[in-house]
Amino acid sequence: MEEVTPIFTVHNLWIMIATLLVFIMHLGFANLEIGLTRSKNSVNILFKNTLIISIGILTYALCGFNLMYPGEAFEGAFFGFAGFGISLSEGWNTPAYDEGYTLYTDFIFQAVFAATAATIVSGAVAERMKLIAFIVFSFLYVGIFYPMVGMWSWGGGFLDTLSTPFYDFAGSTLVHSTGGWAALVGAWMLGPRIGKYPNGKIIPIPGHSLPLAAIGVFLLWFGWFGFNGGSVLSANPGEVSLVFVTTAIAGAAGAFGAFFASYIKFKTNDLTMVLNGILAGLVSITAGADAMGLIDAFIIGLIGGIIVVFAVVFFDMIKIDDPVGAISVHLVCGIWGTLAVGIFGNEAGWNQLVSQLIGIGVVGVFCVIGSGALFFVIKKTIGIRVTEEEEIEGLDISEHKMSAYPEFN
Amino acid sequence: MEEVTPIFTVHNLWIMIATLLVFIMHLGFANLEIGLTRSKNSVNILFKNTLIISIGILTYALCGFNLMYPGEAFEGAFFGFAGFGISLSEGWNTPAYDEGYTLYTDFIFQAVFAATAATIVSGAVAERMKLIAFIVFSFLYVGIFYPMVGMWSWGGGFLDTLSTPFYDFAGSTLVHSTGGWAALVGAWMLGPRIGKYPNGKIIPIPGHSLPLAAIGVFLLWFGWFGFNGGSVLSANPGEVSLVFVTTAIAGAAGAFGAFFASYIKFKTNDLTMVLNGILAGLVSITAGADAMGLIDAFIIGLIGGIIVVFAVVFFDMIKIDDPVGAISVHLVCGIWGTLAVGIFGNEAGWNQLVSQLIGIGVVGVFCVIGSGALFFVIKKTIGIRVTEEEEIEGLDISEHKMSAYPEFN
Amino acid sequence: MEEVTPIFTVHNLWIMIATLLVFIMHLGFANLEIGLTRSKNSVNILFKNTLIISIGILTYALCGFNLMYPGEAFEGAFFGFAGFGISLSEGWNTPAYDEGYTLYTDFIFQAVFAATAATIVSGAVAERMKLIAFIVFSFLYVGIFYPMVGMWSWGGGFLDTLSTPFYDFAGSTLVHSTGGWAALVGAWMLGPRIGKYPNGKIIPIPGHSLPLAAIGVFLLWFGWFGFNGGSVLSANPGEVSLVFVTTAIAGAAGAFGAFFASYIKFKTNDLTMVLNGILAGLVSITAGADAMGLIDAFIIGLIGGIIVVFAVVFFDMIKIDDPVGAISVHLVCGIWGTLAVGIFGNEAGWNQLVSQLIGIGVVGVFCVIGSGALFFVIKKTIGIRVTEEEEIEGLDISEHKMSAYPEFN
Repeated sequence: MEEVTPIFTVHNLWIMIATLLVFIMHLGFANLEIGLTRSKNSVNILFKNTLIISIGILTYALCGFNLMYPGEAFEGAFFGFAGFGISLSEGWNTPAYDEGYTLYTDFIFQAVFAATAATIVSGAVAERMKLIAFIVFSFLYVGIFYPMVGMWSWGGGFLDTLSTPFYDFAGSTLVHSTGGWAALVGAWMLGPRIGKYPNGKIIPIPGHSLPLAAIGVFLLWFGWFGFNGGSVLSANPGEVSLVFVTTAIAGAAGAFGAFFASYIKFKTNDLTMVLNGILAGLVSITAGADAMGLIDAFIIGLIGGIIVVFAVVFFDMIKIDDPVGAISVHLVCGIWGTLAVGIFGNEAGWNQLVSQLIGIGVVGVFCVIGSGALFFVIKKTIGIRVTEEEEIEGLDISEHKMSAYPEFN
Repeated sequence: MEEVTPIFTVHNLWIMIATLLVFIMHLGFANLEIGLTRSKNSVNILFKNTLIISIGILTYALCGFNLMYPGEAFEGAFFGFAGFGISLSEGWNTPAYDEGYTLYTDFIFQAVFAATAATIVSGAVAERMKLIAFIVFSFLYVGIFYPMVGMWSWGGGFLDTLSTPFYDFAGSTLVHSTGGWAALVGAWMLGPRIGKYPNGKIIPIPGHSLPLAAIGVFLLWFGWFGFNGGSVLSANPGEVSLVFVTTAIAGAAGAFGAFFASYIKFKTNDLTMVLNGILAGLVSITAGADAMGLIDAFIIGLIGGIIVVFAVVFFDMIKIDDPVGAISVHLVCGIWGTLAVGIFGNEAGWNQLVSQLIGIGVVGVFCVIGSGALFFVIKKTIGIRVTEEEEIEGLDISEHKMSAYPEFN
Repeated sequence: MEEVTPIFTVHNLWIMIATLLVFIMHLGFANLEIGLTRSKNSVNILFKNTLIISIGILTYALCGFNLMYPGEAFEGAFFGFAGFGISLSEGWNTPAYDEGYTLYTDFIFQAVFAATAATIVSGAVAERMKLIAFIVFSFLYVGIFYPMVGMWSWGGGFLDTLSTPFYDFAGSTLVHSTGGWAALVGAWMLGPRIGKYPNGKIIPIPGHSLPLAAIGVFLLWFGWFGFNGGSVLSANPGEVSLVFVTTAIAGAAGAFGAFFASYIKFKTNDLTMVLNGILAGLVSITAGADAMGLIDAFIIGLIGGIIVVFAVVFFDMIKIDDPVGAISVHLVCGIWGTLAVGIFGNEAGWNQLVSQLIGIGVVGVFCVIGSGALFFVIKKTIGIRVTEEEEIEGLDISEHKMSAYPEFN
């Protein structure tokens, strides 16, 4: 068994801290989502988001981790499973397991990642989906579908054994698009909220608290340094600090991309667009955060911020009602960021671009079919949407018999 | 004098970061407490919580640290004191002091811990206790009583020299129950808020902002990784990562325990119960976070989450008015978690269970008498409860002449 | 090229984490500022604060970093510039660059620092300054003026080559006063908000959410451990842990200083004063956080907390309208903290005090003239203040066509 060295201890410490940063992103998601929706649904959203992180941790311990990292025997495969629970091997807490972290650090870092896939869906289906339907969906999507997809690339599966392997550093596709596709399917199957598209018009439904939304985005950006920086899988000074810089620059560039695009399009200084622009920049850099120069990161983030504005407009145009813009941020910019790896930076090239397209396509088809089947079965059994009365009254009262702000409404 | 080695630097870094995580728990406590109470008392609660952390730091420097860690001469004792202030010894910043941290890291980590004991009380006595009475209580309880109790086990006192030493890894008893007993005594001596139990009925008084309460719980969970993880007292990769996993799983299991128990009991999806369930799971795992397997952690957290629901109902039944459920979370689950060390995991056994009971009992008797005497003297001198008019008007106006949300109420 | 050693990896890790702590201070600033102002301007403030951090990162990459650290050729100089962009030298990611961090870690840590200078200004000019004017100001002040001033001491400029070098550990003058002087000039040139000083009277304009303000201060204190602790520029256990302790004690003492001073002056328990007292204590310790004993830190923080109360009263008396007290906190206590280095602790002495006065004076003159010229040119070109109608309506509607809380107002 290998010795626990100082460098192993530092590497492991960073991944544990990165775990905490990704953990607090869940508070960011919760704040963003309640901020951008109406207060009559805030309890419901908080309830979902509190359970999602719990579901993520528990299902990942039960089966997710061993589905995502089934071991070397499954290299190049489409599916693998190393059994229920987490088994301690000899040397699990030494560099014999991995030079950057212990087994438990690996598990908990990946577990908090896993839960983000369902959180992304949560935003797009907000204000109208039945609580129990969402909980069942989350259990299955986080516990089974997400780790299966992740295995294809990060677990040594078939996308990782392409002649030019699919490159998705921290999950523009494997995490963000995986959530984003299900968000798209869910929002489409649920249909729009009452009053969103009456008689073909598009009516904005403003969220109830932009301060909460902004707190959410700041926390997400803060956590993203762990999301991307932890994906280095060690505390390697040069690599992690580069990832910090590209992550910072892409987020900042995303803010300005959305600022300019929305100013040109709407002739106003739209805070929600700038907030989504930051997230767009961050999602966009995620696939290649370790492979870009500073100017690459700037361009990728800037384009992400521009894209997100037009994507939000587009989904409204085709009457897909996404209360928080999750599909535009996580799916559209997830695709953009994944493609960008083939266009900019160290990995750029035609072969890489082709592999990126393959990865995007395969994940997309699987997630659309998988989440679609899941939503369909849920719809036909327990039902997927609250009644019209419940939706108008708000899910806080109908599902929870409580109000988020009892004194104020 | 020993050399400052890389491994010492890593260990020390982790304890400093854990300090920050425990520090931010105070923001979590503040948010949880204002979220679960009425907006007419929010300024008062923020004022208390802001001062508590300051009181904790200052009294711990003045005397607390030297009461809690009086040195080897007091091993096996009930009381010891190494004098006022913090004295720098030679080698205070090297492994000669401790292999895991410098003297100042030790001090500041323990200081932010100390303040939590008073914060727990704050929740139970909210909305009716006089500000000056609470400040005086906090000074004495944090500055003297808390470190005296802590010394019994962590400072090498008599609980640590039992034939089977009392085992309380990160403070289910030494921190949470110590605060919890005083919370119970305080809530009892103050009596319930006006309108809480009219004519023997139990009237719920909902808090004014569940988003703030949820933010509080997320921050507490986030910080708990430092509370428990820092209690390893080094960055040892295997130990800290295990503690992270048990802490994560127990919190998640607590959420589901409270979800199920409250659904069965109240037939609704009660967000406040799920939030308290997470905290219950976390308090429950705290005593044995380093000694449990993953399934142990799940069971301990799940039971904690179930217990907290029934404890909240119980205290209402006996007309102890605890606005935020602090007694149920910190005292009841603190006891449960301490007992669990004798039942589950590496330390389980009859001898251990007996030692755990001794520790729980001795701490309980001391804290009830100590906090009771303190509250009694305060009551007879400066008074403990605001007048009926002040309570109805709200403490923000009566004690602070300001309003938390001047535009909205 | 030097090797990447374990100790280098730890040091670098700490500076990266300190970067995140300073990053999250921007959320603290945003919350404090919206909490202490009226809800009709919250979107505007969030928009500004979201852009400031983005502007800070981008301009610092473009030119700020190379203005602040132009290299050894400019030692003792007033101005230097190493060119646009960040150039990777050989060994940028090893101790050859610096024993404590890589080039990119250095850059990103300094970049998040830079943005704080403009954030300080934001608070003082809130509720009446034109958005575009503030954005233009921020670009130039953060991108050019702040790094020029910083170069004088931290970049090896003339203040660093005085016979007794100017001592400003983490930036009481170089960051806080630099922002504070511009805040003073800006608030003076803008004039007070409508209704603030009618007929020579002073009318308090309470902020709309003290919970948000308190969240802001907790986050700022949390982040300040990275602001000061990261300024050690390594994870040296003794030095960083001392800085943690002085930072904690000064903040706590500042709370009590402001508590007592405001109680004596106003006969009430003023939460906003206690919150500003904490910040005052933190700003005051910043210049000498590594050079003070615990009692020094207590006295410096306590005096800071007292000063801020009287400074707030003073600026109201001379009709400088500073909605959040930024000038009192950052400028006045920045000066106090810088002087305190010459009075207390390891560096105390007449020569030091003279150097401190020189530094304060030179920075003051430069910042007043520089920011004054900037504001003047902006005023004469794009205009600096919104119209009376826009101000009364609120900047959220007039500048952004949205409301922070659409359901509530």
